[in-house]
Amino acid sequence: MDRPLVDGSTKLIGIAGHPIAQVLTPTIMSALCRRNGVNALCVPLHVEPAGLAALLAGLRGMHNLLGVIATVPHKQAAAALADTQLPRARQARAANVLRRGADGRWSADMLDGVGFIAALRAAGHEPRGKRALVAGAGGVATAICFALAEAGAAEIALFDSDAARAEDLVGRLRAEGADACLAGPDPAGFGLVLNATPLGMRPEDSMAIDPARLDPTAIAADVVNKPAVTKFLLAAQARGCAILPGARMTEHQMAAMAKFYDFPDVDWSPAAIHALGMK
Amino acid sequence: MDRPLVDGSTKLIGIAGHPIAQVLTPTIMSALCRRNGVNALCVPLHVEPAGLAALLAGLRGMHNLLGVIATVPHKQAAAALADTQLPRARQARAANVLRRGADGRWSADMLDGVGFIAALRAAGHEPRGKRALVAGAGGVATAICFALAEAGAAEIALFDSDAARAEDLVGRLRAEGADACLAGPDPAGFGLVLNATPLGMRPEDSMAIDPARLDPTAIAADVVNKPAVTKFLLAAQARGCAILPGARMTEHQMAAMAKFYDFPDVDWSPAAIHALGMK
Repeated sequence: MDRPLVDGSTKLIGIAGHPIAQVLTPTIMSALCRRNGVNALCVPLHVEPAGLAALLAGLRGMHNLLGVIATVPHKQAAAALADTQLPRARQARAANVLRRGADGRWSADMLDGVGFIAALRAAGHEPRGKRALVAGAGGVATAICFALAEAGAAEIALFDSDAARAEDLVGRLRAEGADACLAGPDPAGFGLVLNATPLGMRPEDSMAIDPARLDPTAIAADVVNKPAVTKFLLAAQARGCAILPGARMTEHQMAAMAKFYDFPDVDWSPAAIHALGMK
Repeated sequence: MDRPLVDGSTKLIGIAGHPIAQVLTPTIMSALCRRNGVNALCVPLHVEPAGLAALLAGLRGMHNLLGVIATVPHKQAAAALADTQLPRARQARAANVLRRGADGRWSADMLDGVGFIAALRAAGHEPRGKRALVAGAGGVATAICFALAEAGAAEIALFDSDAARAEDLVGRLRAEGADACLAGPDPAGFGLVLNATPLGMRPEDSMAIDPARLDPTAIAADVVNKPAVTKFLLAAQARGCAILPGARMTEHQMAAMAKFYDFPDVDWSPAAIHALGMK
C-alpha cells in the first residue's frame, strides 16, 4: 500500500462554511501537503451560523488541529469569536483564517485581500491608479476593498443588496483615507470590475454586474471559483475584457495561508498550486 | 490529477483519543472508502479527557460529520455524554462509536466485544466453553467480557491495576448470569488469555500477564495493535500458543462500524480490510 491518506498522526485544518460543497481549499491544500510529504489534511466543516460558536469552542481542545479557515457566511463571526484579531482582521471586521494556539486560543487574520491583489499582479494587472467597481460589501468584499486602497487604487466604488452595509463600508474606507463611494451595477468607465458576492455559484443566479456595459479594456474578476469561469466572466470575455477567475485568488491565498499556518518544507507557491491542475 | 483525497463534499468520521498517533482506524477506514469510491474520510481528533464534552457539543452542528469513534481514554465518557445509549453501550457503560443524528443528537454503541468475538471465530477459535483470563477492566475489557459471556465462555477471570474497577466488573458480569471471578496475572490453566490493557504500546511497558505461565495450547490475544505483534504476543508465540493480534479485532470492528455508520456500497468485509495489507 502507498503512504496512507491519513493516519493517527495527521494534522488537520478545517474549513467552516455553509454551503461547503463548492470550496476548493480542502482539495488544493491537502494535495499540496501530500505532494510535499507533510502529514496534514484540510477538511470541510459544514456548519450553519448558529453552530459556529459552539464548534470553535469545542475545537479549542483538539491538539492536532492547526486551525480553521472561515468561508461564507462565517467570516465576520470568525473574527468576532477569536481571542486575538490581527490588524487586517480588525480592519475588515472579518477573518478567513483562525490559528489555534497551543493554549487553545484562536487568533484571526484576513487574507482575502492579500490573495486578490497578489493574483491580480501575477496576471500582469497593476491595481495602482485604477478605478475599481466592487459588487458586494461582505467579508471578502471588505477585505478586497481595504487591500485595493492599500495597493493605491484611484477610486473604489461599491454596492451591495444590503444598502446599509455598503454605506458603512464606504464610510470605513474613507476613514482610512481611501477615495470610496457608493455605486450601482453599471461598470462603464471602470478599469477593474469585481464580483465579490456569491452570485454565480448557481446556474440560476443573476449577475451582480451588468456585463453589457463593461469597457473592453477593463479587467473583470470574480471571487466565485465554482464554476471555474462564471457567467459574468464568460460575458466579460465575450466583450474582450481580460478576466481573473476566483481560483487564481484562491491559489494566492493558499500561499498566504502557508505562512499563516507555518507549514515547514511545503512549496506553497502559486505556481506549485496552479501545477496541481485544478480548475 | 487523480480523484482528490478530499473536497468540499467529503463526509467525515472522527476518532477521538489521547494519545492518538497509534490508531489504525483512520488509515483503514479512509482507504476502504476511497477504494470503494465513497467520498468519506476518517480523521484523528486528538483531545484530552477535559476537552471531550466541549468537542462533542461543538460537533453537534457539523452536518458533514457522520459520527465520532471513541478510543482510550474516552470510551466511558463517550457513553455518558451520548443522548441515547444502545443496549451494548448501556451494559458496558462505555461506547466506542457515536453516531450524529440529523438533529445533532448523539447515539452510542459499543462494538469492541463484537469485533473481538468475530476475529476470534474467524481465526478458527470458538470461545464457547473456554476458561478466559482477561487483563484489564476498562472500556474495551468490559465490552469483551460481556461479549465473552454472551458467546458462552465457561469462566471469565479478570484483574486490573484498579482493584475496585475489577471487582465492580465481576459483579456486573455475575448480575448478568456469567461465571466471573477476580484473578491475577498467572495464565496457567486458561484456554483464552487476553491483554485488554494499553500495556504493550510503548517498548518500555511491562506485560500485564506473565507469558512464562501460558499453557502452550492457549490462545493469546491482545487489544494493542501498534506494535502489530506486542511483546506479550511474541512471548506467547515462543511458548507455542496461537496468537490473535489487535489488528484482527480492529478489522472485524470495522465491519461492525460499517453497519453502524450505514455506508452504502462499501465492501467492509474483514477480508477486504485485511487485503489493504495493514499490519
